[in-house]
Amino acid sequence: MKPEKPTTLISTFDEKGSTIRGKSLVDDLIGEITFTDMIYFYILGRMPTPAQTKVLDAVLVTLVDHGMLGALSARMVYNSSPDAIQGAVAAGMLGVGSQYGGVMEQVGRILEELIAAADPDAKAREIVAAYRSSKRALPGFGHNDFRPDDPRTPKLFQVAEAAGVPGKHIAALRTLARAVDAAVGKHITINATAGMAAVLGEIGVPWKIMRGFALISRAPGLVGHIHEEQQRPAAHYLGRLAQRSVEYAGEKPSSS
Amino acid sequence: MKPEKPTTLISTFDEKGSTIRGKSLVDDLIGEITFTDMIYFYILGRMPTPAQTKVLDAVLVTLVDHGMLGALSARMVYNSSPDAIQGAVAAGMLGVGSQYGGVMEQVGRILEELIAAADPDAKAREIVAAYRSSKRALPGFGHNDFRPDDPRTPKLFQVAEAAGVPGKHIAALRTLARAVDAAVGKHITINATAGMAAVLGEIGVPWKIMRGFALISRAPGLVGHIHEEQQRPAAHYLGRLAQRSVEYAGEKPSSS
Amino acid sequence: MKPEKPTTLISTFDEKGSTIRGKSLVDDLIGEITFTDMIYFYILGRMPTPAQTKVLDAVLVTLVDHGMLGALSARMVYNSSPDAIQGAVAAGMLGVGSQYGGVMEQVGRILEELIAAADPDAKAREIVAAYRSSKRALPGFGHNDFRPDDPRTPKLFQVAEAAGVPGKHIAALRTLARAVDAAVGKHITINATAGMAAVLGEIGVPWKIMRGFALISRAPGLVGHIHEEQQRPAAHYLGRLAQRSVEYAGEKPSSS
Amino acid sequence: MKPEKPTTLISTFDEKGSTIRGKSLVDDLIGEITFTDMIYFYILGRMPTPAQTKVLDAVLVTLVDHGMLGALSARMVYNSSPDAIQGAVAAGMLGVGSQYGGVMEQVGRILEELIAAADPDAKAREIVAAYRSSKRALPGFGHNDFRPDDPRTPKLFQVAEAAGVPGKHIAALRTLARAVDAAVGKHITINATAGMAAVLGEIGVPWKIMRGFALISRAPGLVGHIHEEQQRPAAHYLGRLAQRSVEYAGEKPSSS
Repeated sequence: MKPEKPTTLISTFDEKGSTIRGKSLVDDLIGEITFTDMIYFYILGRMPTPAQTKVLDAVLVTLVDHGMLGALSARMVYNSSPDAIQGAVAAGMLGVGSQYGGVMEQVGRILEELIAAADPDAKAREIVAAYRSSKRALPGFGHNDFRPDDPRTPKLFQVAEAAGVPGKHIAALRTLARAVDAAVGKHITINATAGMAAVLGEIGVPWKIMRGFALISRAPGLVGHIHEEQQRPAAHYLGRLAQRSVEYAGEKPSSS
Repeated sequence: MKPEKPTTLISTFDEKGSTIRGKSLVDDLIGEITFTDMIYFYILGRMPTPAQTKVLDAVLVTLVDHGMLGALSARMVYNSSPDAIQGAVAAGMLGVGSQYGGVMEQVGRILEELIAAADPDAKAREIVAAYRSSKRALPGFGHNDFRPDDPRTPKLFQVAEAAGVPGKHIAALRTLARAVDAAVGKHITINATAGMAAVLGEIGVPWKIMRGFALISRAPGLVGHIHEEQQRPAAHYLGRLAQRSVEYAGEKPSSS
Repeated sequence: MKPEKPTTLISTFDEKGSTIRGKSLVDDLIGEITFTDMIYFYILGRMPTPAQTKVLDAVLVTLVDHGMLGALSARMVYNSSPDAIQGAVAAGMLGVGSQYGGVMEQVGRILEELIAAADPDAKAREIVAAYRSSKRALPGFGHNDFRPDDPRTPKLFQVAEAAGVPGKHIAALRTLARAVDAAVGKHITINATAGMAAVLGEIGVPWKIMRGFALISRAPGLVGHIHEEQQRPAAHYLGRLAQRSVEYAGEKPSSS
Repeated sequence: MKPEKPTTLISTFDEKGSTIRGKSLVDDLIGEITFTDMIYFYILGRMPTPAQTKVLDAVLVTLVDHGMLGALSARMVYNSSPDAIQGAVAAGMLGVGSQYGGVMEQVGRILEELIAAADPDAKAREIVAAYRSSKRALPGFGHNDFRPDDPRTPKLFQVAEAAGVPGKHIAALRTLARAVDAAVGKHITINATAGMAAVLGEIGVPWKIMRGFALISRAPGLVGHIHEEQQRPAAHYLGRLAQRSVEYAGEKPSSS
């Protein structure tokens, strides 16, 4: 298997500076567009419309914070190696996995199926039934802390609708939610992960890279906790607390 | 050593939603501020002025791209585990270490020393002499690819000055650069890492957390390469190329 | 959802020292058992028999090296942050993902299905047919470099059989291989990943944690490359080579 | 700066199999040497003597366990992404940083200085005085939990001495300890990190790569905790506990 020589559409540079997707970094990008514009442009290869930037800002703001729970690994690693904060950020990033960022991907994929379906309501009932019959949780529904509604979801819809997005993904998520409520027999929370998958779909983000946007927004959240750890350390306390809280229930040493 | 019970100034939540540094996530932040504002606010605990946002946008845009070199680890890891892109982003983040993000910290620290000095020119000469006598490279000066000047640095200064920053850190960096050129006897490039440390200093970012801003801006750069790898794979080719390019120069097996 | 207070069966300590799964670290383990014994004991909670140790040594030795390709991320990260080699090892570890360590898990799972089957030959034909009809590669078969046979697989079987393992997993893999060859109409390589899954199964390692053993054996492989990078640097060269080898095929900047 | 084409002394392969440092993987290594031998051989390029293997086994056994504290990041990441345990192991590895594995490096370096000194006692007094005058903790001395002595240190010395190592590094550490006790005016614990640095020095491990051995031994410790998490989950509980235990002490939202 001889792989063909690959090329890139992303960037190149010469002694005068970098070209990124056809733009001069220095002349066209630095000082000319916002970081949010750059994120969209760099990943998707086209400049966002003002509506797309507005929605992307809202999504990225939503996910920055994940409390002490989301920052615990990063703080622990910082405490062991304060000279290498890239390790602390990396450890925190590794927690944005299948149970979290991965859920966005699954919701995004389902919404694309619904949009493509001839009868979205029937398709939604079918998807919900398939998850229930295999006893898997339907991705994007339910939340431990926010009931009956995750307040972030309607706010994201409101921002997206005010910005003037097409609305197909949001409509698909509402279709899915109706099918969920009907199947369960009561109202189930549409959590923010589902809401974000819908509005990212609205601005043209393919489901396959949605987890990447969760990772981008988590980065400053982790840096914020690391900066607090520099000033108000909690990791040492939390490590000791974990150690003390999980008691040893195994055998005693025979030699003592 | 019994650590006191720590507290956090960052966030809390109840069933109605999250509070982040005194703001309601849903009412005050999502859809109300940009991601760049949120980054500054979340990490530093105060809303940026429009000038600070402008400068932070410029810095974050500058560092997104680091070419195929900066994305190589992320692409290799993606290729081994395309179902877990958090691992690919984490591997890429781990490359923003002491030789790169760490240089910003060192420059930031030197600039704070110069600002605090009674005679900044004398202090700059002293610092340059100390590095040269211990044969260490002065952080922030010289660049493999961009000579005589790294075009990003003057652009960052221009953006910062147009936005109306105080100017002390930029002035300190210029003082340092004069001392460098005088000591070496020719003009040495002020690289973008130094430029970014100066303008981040201008907007109130402590040197101790500057590497964190490099990490934040690298996140979308890595996600962009992972998305390209999803569509136009290069990692398999590059892995084979690396394997082939570094020849084995050790012993042959005696048993064959 | 209120989680119950968890306990651990792994370890505890007091001012006299640590207890690990009922043994005193100092009196019973350090200097008393080998690292390989400790790996088995710590993870699985029982001391290995001499045969199990012999097989585990063979598996762990097999996977240490993965050439320059397997070490590329680690070397790149080391080059960016030589002061924090834990980052380089972590980046290398992240490459032992679904396409590699994950394959062992899948093979291990299939072998357990075959062992449990009333008619293993029929079950093997069924599994092979299912993979082929969904156009997925059957995990554990085929190899880019080693044909017709991966020489590691028969050696692992020979070590395991000489040590006197029960033989059920090896037999199951041979059953599977016969079904593969019959379906394809020619001999397909049983690769080392499959061979290792079989012999790990023989010594009682559940398929769910097999990837963990791949990670353990890769650790010294990465440390070996990092130590070589300390003495004979290759990462800078390889990064530049990657940069140069993937040409930019995007638009030229309109502003230049 | 044009880097020369690098070569490697580690490994190569052809269609018949791999050669590792002059040995055939299949004929000379798998089933022929232990994992511990392979670790030494792969990293240092020479087969260990039986004494060196004995000491390396003891060191690697010592560091496997680091309790719930050392496994906290790995468990948290496993909980977020149970399909990608390489991420959990990587996160745990990132905690073996400057405050831990890095201490071994520093002790190892000091021991080499003492061995090279004409008057080791005077050199030891000088080193201790330098640390004390700059108010830095001397690496390798003191322990939160084990006083007056860390029981692992004498056991490591006993294993090394029984195996018949040269003894220079152990003697140097004892010299350093005498200088520490004299300067402080009471007995200070020689912790296991110092003990391991000494005995690794005895078997020819350069201080620059000692942290790598800590990383290797931590790998199975993390895999053991991940396997326990698969069966007896604790991470969800510990994350919630951390969240609850660090109270928010910031402003209340003005909008509520």
